[in-house]
Amino acid sequence: MKIAILLFNRFTALDAVGPYEVLGRLPDADLVFVGENRGPVRTDTNRMAIEADATLEEVPEADILVIPGGPGQSNHMEDGKLHDWIRAMDATSTWTTTVCTGSLILAATGLLKDKKATSHWLALNQLENHGAIPTAERVVTDGKYVTAAGVSAGIDMALTLTEKIAGKDYAEKIQLAIEYDPHPPQNAGNPTTAPQKIVESLRANSRHIMQ
Amino acid sequence: MKIAILLFNRFTALDAVGPYEVLGRLPDADLVFVGENRGPVRTDTNRMAIEADATLEEVPEADILVIPGGPGQSNHMEDGKLHDWIRAMDATSTWTTTVCTGSLILAATGLLKDKKATSHWLALNQLENHGAIPTAERVVTDGKYVTAAGVSAGIDMALTLTEKIAGKDYAEKIQLAIEYDPHPPQNAGNPTTAPQKIVESLRANSRHIMQ
Repeated sequence: MKIAILLFNRFTALDAVGPYEVLGRLPDADLVFVGENRGPVRTDTNRMAIEADATLEEVPEADILVIPGGPGQSNHMEDGKLHDWIRAMDATSTWTTTVCTGSLILAATGLLKDKKATSHWLALNQLENHGAIPTAERVVTDGKYVTAAGVSAGIDMALTLTEKIAGKDYAEKIQLAIEYDPHPPQNAGNPTTAPQKIVESLRANSRHIMQ
Repeated sequence: MKIAILLFNRFTALDAVGPYEVLGRLPDADLVFVGENRGPVRTDTNRMAIEADATLEEVPEADILVIPGGPGQSNHMEDGKLHDWIRAMDATSTWTTTVCTGSLILAATGLLKDKKATSHWLALNQLENHGAIPTAERVVTDGKYVTAAGVSAGIDMALTLTEKIAGKDYAEKIQLAIEYDPHPPQNAGNPTTAPQKIVESLRANSRHIMQ
């Protein structure tokens, strides 16, 4: 089971690491972080870097492709080398997945045309600009495309995918291994449950809070 | 607000990245990943590395110290340079925190003596060997010591801490920014809710599933 997780400058760390922590425990997982160049790739805060262990050219195919999001997404919306790589990976992948605004990059390649997809709640409507069907759910599956909402939703996406690939028992083993029994101490995890003033504050200052 | 996250070989990625993703968004967060040496530090799967941007010597103090866990924890239970550093950091920290089996390292330094603490459910009882009081909760606060259960619990720990430091509104902003509205697709996140066969399977094969 070959798994490729894309890295690009100013990605959001948890977008990539949530799926990594789950999918990396699949049976015979052969997981690799892929970047334009080998070496450290900085996150949106600039205070963390994950090593790209292979270049795009070195990873021409995988069973699962994971595209994270983050503020750096906006630098990857034009057609070119990265989009070519994503389309080539998708041509042979079993699953093509995204977390957060990673779905905007995937949509910009044309692969989500007429597909249901989700994204970070602040970016969801932008999917429409690329022919996808914005769907306000935490994890959206349309054929082989599995998209997750913002940042932390990648964990739920990866456990959903794990159950499809390796069965419920195995997904439960991973869930228990990472003790994924979330108890958020606040109740503001999505824009429909969060206090309106918090939602508005993020809409107004999303550049700051989103890094 | 200076935040130091320790890295050591064969740590579990999400233990460190969950708290990073939350605490890195605190007002004036000055966050650094710290290792014995600068450069990439490999996780338990060996398929990922986070860059240590500073050495232990370069970070003599912080407001918040985060110690992750993972299989590599077992190599850091003896007194020596790392324990000296942890004790010195703790002497001036406002909060000393751990995720997963990071609490075993902290306990081994002597700092959790007679303190309530938690750990990964498979390791919880080991806290007793070091004079701490094992407490089967997701996040345990005893004075300035905040410990989290396994792997994913670091997100809840960091949001708990954020509310103490920056208030409820700010914690809610971070929760909404990372869209932390978890919906685990399975119901096996802790050993009391997971099917017994899954619990027993992990007890028997914890070396495998825990990497």
